Amino acid sequence: MREFELIEAIRRKIGAPGRGTVVGIGDDAAVYEPPGGLELFTSDAFVEDVHFRRDYSTFLEIGAKCMVANVSDIAAMGGFPTRATVSLAVPSDVGEEEIGELYDGLIEVAKKYAVEIVGGDIVGSPSGLVVAIALVGAADGDRVVLRGGAVVGDAVLVTGELGGAQAGLIALEKGLPSEGDIAKALARHRLPAPRVAEAQALLDVATPHSMIDISDGLGSEVWHIADESGVGIELWEAKIPVSPGATEVAKRLGLDDLDLAVSSGEEFELVVTVPPSEVDRAIEHVTTVTGTPLSWVGKVVAAGEGCRLERGDGTFEPLGRTGYEHLTD
Amino acid sequence: MREFELIEAIRRKIGAPGRGTVVGIGDDAAVYEPPGGLELFTSDAFVEDVHFRRDYSTFLEIGAKCMVANVSDIAAMGGFPTRATVSLAVPSDVGEEEIGELYDGLIEVAKKYAVEIVGGDIVGSPSGLVVAIALVGAADGDRVVLRGGAVVGDAVLVTGELGGAQAGLIALEKGLPSEGDIAKALARHRLPAPRVAEAQALLDVATPHSMIDISDGLGSEVWHIADESGVGIELWEAKIPVSPGATEVAKRLGLDDLDLAVSSGEEFELVVTVPPSEVDRAIEHVTTVTGTPLSWVGKVVAAGEGCRLERGDGTFEPLGRTGYEHLTD
Repeated sequence: MREFELIEAIRRKIGAPGRGTVVGIGDDAAVYEPPGGLELFTSDAFVEDVHFRRDYSTFLEIGAKCMVANVSDIAAMGGFPTRATVSLAVPSDVGEEEIGELYDGLIEVAKKYAVEIVGGDIVGSPSGLVVAIALVGAADGDRVVLRGGAVVGDAVLVTGELGGAQAGLIALEKGLPSEGDIAKALARHRLPAPRVAEAQALLDVATPHSMIDISDGLGSEVWHIADESGVGIELWEAKIPVSPGATEVAKRLGLDDLDLAVSSGEEFELVVTVPPSEVDRAIEHVTTVTGTPLSWVGKVVAAGEGCRLERGDGTFEPLGRTGYEHLTD
Repeated sequence: MREFELIEAIRRKIGAPGRGTVVGIGDDAAVYEPPGGLELFTSDAFVEDVHFRRDYSTFLEIGAKCMVANVSDIAAMGGFPTRATVSLAVPSDVGEEEIGELYDGLIEVAKKYAVEIVGGDIVGSPSGLVVAIALVGAADGDRVVLRGGAVVGDAVLVTGELGGAQAGLIALEKGLPSEGDIAKALARHRLPAPRVAEAQALLDVATPHSMIDISDGLGSEVWHIADESGVGIELWEAKIPVSPGATEVAKRLGLDDLDLAVSSGEEFELVVTVPPSEVDRAIEHVTTVTGTPLSWVGKVVAAGEGCRLERGDGTFEPLGRTGYEHLTD
């Protein structure tokens, strides 16, 4: 199948241009009326055998997860996504049907978060599959939250439960049975959820000073906030919400589930710092509106203290600066 | 070198956020005030050994050309580019210095066309280098030109000279000496120019009905206009501006330089259709303002006639629907 026919087929799959879109997929560039106010722009590339494996995930899951990761970046700024372009580099052993399934996954997540796919391209790849997504979005009332605004004394909150994504990957690698909490970890690895609504709910009742999404692991992300804000961060082991799937996988394999929770990447939960006075209403409102738990897991401290974890026995240990790194080095 | 340090180095290379940019490279997403009016959005991925070869081009040239191709897509809509994100998938044999050179090329072209690089990511690649760029832009006075607006009777115009890009690639493949017109073809292959100013100049004096840039070859692009507009297109061999480099390479290798001019991809010249009454002032104004020639190379005909080339002897031959296709099939 040639590029032209394939793009026509994808165009039909995506459907007519959405509201405010003058030109959707199929021309040299998309044309649209921006929603007004501040705009957001992000891109991420996902590479076969670095970010995903064809024997662990279906094409549908690969497409869906790549879109989730980009939507999550917009959520982590306090914004909502609006439009996407998708560039695919496709090896010769991936056929028309698989590209269609990949697009089904992209479109499924895009629709769920009100994102319109408006452009992109498909090129050949001599080796692995590459999915590069770019996303634009907007910020309601121009409220955006950067990584660099944390101040000493802030409470550190995290959405959801952690560890499931990495536990699911380990379960696949070790061939653990897909049952009970392990099945939940597998599902989390295959398709995490971006926290767009959670960030919006938070912004409705609080004035977050800094925010980031967990793509490389909680430990690594708090370092990003710390570095950009010129502060340190202290996490409390006892308060970190560990997913039951991580606990179950850790138990079976003799691992530490807390380590999993701190280092697990591709969770796409949000880490946010807010004034302590706002913690109670933030937790109550976000949980009520979205059903997603919000946990108070630590505090912002002076830069000199770095980033550290308070163990259950009251001792401190330093947090590693690097989580899972996608760059070969 | 780890991802974090590398991104810091690139951040320094790019410099402070530009006008209207609230958050540039380094956070989860860029944040900016859109310039107002209609917005444009495009992305393209470039894959090693499909779009470029490390033994034919320097990293600087690879970066520059990838940015040119995206800027060209915005130019072909009648817009001007404003901001870019760059996603790189980098194999382990490409070091920090080479990534820096690639970025120097990206930045050089970006600055030349007033584009700010505001985000992106760098990930590992198990095999070849992949450069995925996304670009947003704006349309002055909301004037955009699509592929689908050509009407029967329109004049078909093309900027610049054609054939040099493919001739340069062939010269590299065949090891022709870099001298005279061949050197010009090599330069064209390595770094073509996007026609942003030419499109703007055209829009100042004419009302183009359709426009596209030449990424896959003149013959292929006129089919895109024809298909999207529901028309046919007739090109006149005698009027197609063949670059001296294409003529010289063709002469040395026993090829047809006109074939080169019609099939040569990555030229990034513009193909545009305008009412015949606007041709004279369009050619005069574009040439005067930009120094780039604009040639009247054909006309829009009824759909039933398809796309065809009138040879010098007055006979017609059909134009192939496909130019250079980047998708392996």
